[in-house]
Amino acid sequence: MKHFLTTEDWPREDLEQLLVDADRLRGLKDQSLKGKTAALIFFNPSLRTRASFQVAMIEMGGNALVLDTAGTWSLEVEPGAMMDQGAEEHVKEAARVLSTYVDVICIRCFPKFQDWSVDRQDRLLHAFAEYATVPIVNMETIVHPCQELAHMLAVKDRLGAPDGKKYVLTWTYHPKPLNTAVANSSLLIATKFGMDVTLLCPTEEYLLDPRFMSASEENVKRSGGSLTISHDPQTAYRDADVVYAKSWGALPYFGRWEEEKPIRDAHRHFRVDEDKMALTNNALFSHCLPLRRNVKVTDAVADSPQSMIIEEAANRLPVQKAVLQRLLKGN
Amino acid sequence: MKHFLTTEDWPREDLEQLLVDADRLRGLKDQSLKGKTAALIFFNPSLRTRASFQVAMIEMGGNALVLDTAGTWSLEVEPGAMMDQGAEEHVKEAARVLSTYVDVICIRCFPKFQDWSVDRQDRLLHAFAEYATVPIVNMETIVHPCQELAHMLAVKDRLGAPDGKKYVLTWTYHPKPLNTAVANSSLLIATKFGMDVTLLCPTEEYLLDPRFMSASEENVKRSGGSLTISHDPQTAYRDADVVYAKSWGALPYFGRWEEEKPIRDAHRHFRVDEDKMALTNNALFSHCLPLRRNVKVTDAVADSPQSMIIEEAANRLPVQKAVLQRLLKGN
Amino acid sequence: MKHFLTTEDWPREDLEQLLVDADRLRGLKDQSLKGKTAALIFFNPSLRTRASFQVAMIEMGGNALVLDTAGTWSLEVEPGAMMDQGAEEHVKEAARVLSTYVDVICIRCFPKFQDWSVDRQDRLLHAFAEYATVPIVNMETIVHPCQELAHMLAVKDRLGAPDGKKYVLTWTYHPKPLNTAVANSSLLIATKFGMDVTLLCPTEEYLLDPRFMSASEENVKRSGGSLTISHDPQTAYRDADVVYAKSWGALPYFGRWEEEKPIRDAHRHFRVDEDKMALTNNALFSHCLPLRRNVKVTDAVADSPQSMIIEEAANRLPVQKAVLQRLLKGN
Repeated sequence: MKHFLTTEDWPREDLEQLLVDADRLRGLKDQSLKGKTAALIFFNPSLRTRASFQVAMIEMGGNALVLDTAGTWSLEVEPGAMMDQGAEEHVKEAARVLSTYVDVICIRCFPKFQDWSVDRQDRLLHAFAEYATVPIVNMETIVHPCQELAHMLAVKDRLGAPDGKKYVLTWTYHPKPLNTAVANSSLLIATKFGMDVTLLCPTEEYLLDPRFMSASEENVKRSGGSLTISHDPQTAYRDADVVYAKSWGALPYFGRWEEEKPIRDAHRHFRVDEDKMALTNNALFSHCLPLRRNVKVTDAVADSPQSMIIEEAANRLPVQKAVLQRLLKGN
Repeated sequence: MKHFLTTEDWPREDLEQLLVDADRLRGLKDQSLKGKTAALIFFNPSLRTRASFQVAMIEMGGNALVLDTAGTWSLEVEPGAMMDQGAEEHVKEAARVLSTYVDVICIRCFPKFQDWSVDRQDRLLHAFAEYATVPIVNMETIVHPCQELAHMLAVKDRLGAPDGKKYVLTWTYHPKPLNTAVANSSLLIATKFGMDVTLLCPTEEYLLDPRFMSASEENVKRSGGSLTISHDPQTAYRDADVVYAKSWGALPYFGRWEEEKPIRDAHRHFRVDEDKMALTNNALFSHCLPLRRNVKVTDAVADSPQSMIIEEAANRLPVQKAVLQRLLKGN
Repeated sequence: MKHFLTTEDWPREDLEQLLVDADRLRGLKDQSLKGKTAALIFFNPSLRTRASFQVAMIEMGGNALVLDTAGTWSLEVEPGAMMDQGAEEHVKEAARVLSTYVDVICIRCFPKFQDWSVDRQDRLLHAFAEYATVPIVNMETIVHPCQELAHMLAVKDRLGAPDGKKYVLTWTYHPKPLNTAVANSSLLIATKFGMDVTLLCPTEEYLLDPRFMSASEENVKRSGGSLTISHDPQTAYRDADVVYAKSWGALPYFGRWEEEKPIRDAHRHFRVDEDKMALTNNALFSHCLPLRRNVKVTDAVADSPQSMIIEEAANRLPVQKAVLQRLLKGN
């Protein structure tokens, strides 16, 4: 497996092995990637992902270059394009040249939030994967596979085998429409690991892209889990073992967010709070951070012993070590 | 002593030891911090501080991550806040998560210059110190303790024991109101090290915050030095052994700087020049850099053999090595 | 030779040795610059140069600090200036202080495109060279000497000895006026290495600065090459062995670019295409990247086996290793 773009094309057993590796790599500093360099390209800002990737490389004896493009690097992805508009460079050159300098290229590139039919193609990531001659790692585009693994590692640490456990992915309020990446990833990993998953969201319009709904349906067939859709918190939370919260913008409203705002605002009560958590089977709570406290989730839940938010974030480091080792050393 | 937030809570003998350590670490490259990583978080721009901290870690075999937030990372510090405004993340999570990735967190966060009653609380720094599980180092907030030590090391190199030497901290003209941090720090360190200190500033309104005036008064009681206030350069410079120049905005005018401007402009003659220096005991001159030449100080003074501006800046490197070693190795 | 500012003051045999060194250093990772640190100062954005310099230091066991000033670091270069305007710091301090932290300072500083009589002095670079006490490397100002060497290394890899080979530097269309640095550098290196050089550009107004035209004339006297000016692609391309494409703004139009636009637009046909390349002696093609495909050059040419664009970019890494070793180790 050359790239790490999405968990969709990784079998569960390979992901399980990455989690075993990650667990072993916790706190370990070695020279396993001595002489290796990663380019971390951020088309969108990052602190946690950037810090954890950089430390991952350093703690294995390697190095990381942070290329923070801050909107200044406009890359063409279309083959054959007449490049007389904004883009100064084709990804064909960018990917091939960087491949001669570094051993792995990690990319963060969010949707542009104007047209989901474009964003859903994740073209920049795939163009890098096509042209680069070194492995590509997804640091969040329309999925966030490293977050997925960090999350599942936290779940397994607390629950043991996840199979058959009841998992709720709940939409939660946020004043702005956000990327669906972590929601997509949550659905993918929980279904792949055999959990009984409920996707709780305000309306049908908040369902995730058919690609991820279908992949999750496929996952449950293989893993023995299940996937249910709910718009009612009271039902969805009942007997849950894990509650994962994330806010996201409804796909039909890309590019006309002012029309989505009233629906969003009408569902502030989706906030994760003590009352909802009281319906669960003493469920674990998590969120990918950053977290708007008392907007997405109450302090009481975020700070409870069942909250795994810090563990999940801490897991980014060993998980990324495992992914980087797999790609760079083939182990 | 877990953090290095301000010299106020460090006894003189501990600071003296840091200076001894710094002197020993000059030019030294070793592996004393092998495997250690520092996060350098800049909420305000930096070149000198950033370069010297990064090199300090590298030359001791460690590494540094530079997290340049460039205004994009708005952190909530208030416990229990309803985070529906600008801040996307609470420092509680930021500090705890980063603590799982790195061994020490260094922070630069200037006052916002709107309301000194808020700025003077230095809340972000203290919130990091409260929530982080690794040491915190102040890279300049409302004090600048690393600059203090670099300054005092330069003074000691030139003068030997500073006790009883006459020290003038002079306000000097700058077209914009600046942070009081280095002025506060100058006062704190000179009084702590037993010097006869004169604070020379245009008017009473330019006195420093009572917290630092009082701490300096306490310092002189303990150190045997003295603290005098002057608004007259002719008197203040007489027989001085050290002249330290700094410009700062008058605290009562925070948020309404246009009212301060005429006072500031009327004191352009506070510029350090040859005539004033001629009144001194062949005094050493210093300034923390960057320095507006011929505005704050004349070229003749800045380039004279008595000028320590380059030495003081160069001292940032060994001083920070000493601080980082103390915090990370406990030596 | 202390600095690497321009190839003008480096004899051909020294440059040849750098290319021999670069060839040897390809793919090599050693500890030859262990404990050495480079400061990479970018007054203009960079990805390729930044990545290749950083990796060069890392792969020789050293480190690099990236100081991305993003317009926030305004340095005074005039000796004796009254610094009451925009500049907060004099290069005198900046260069001397950084020299105490790092072992080499690499600088990118483009022309400001308002007044060529100012830009052509390249004052910031020369001020750093004057005040710094460590070597200075030019990462592109009004020349781009590292690109020159990477280009010539690619040429030699493909052609062997370049002497007597026919070389065309062609202006090519770009929607915006660009820096002349790479054009100047192309002319300098091709003439220094004994090639029969044709400078192909739309009109007399696109000739390069007299400094570089004269230096190139001097080069051909010494190297036995030649220098011809042409405004006719049909003639210029005939029997060429190497075609190097670059777009640049005409020097007389600095600061009034709207007047240059019609001339520029009238020469879109200078684009490098298959028809023109068919006139050549199966010429190699190159360009320094980034490249606007199908604007500056057609896909068919850029992707042909004769295209060296990726090789030239890849050569940046070993060339810069060779330059850094020469300056830091004297070998």
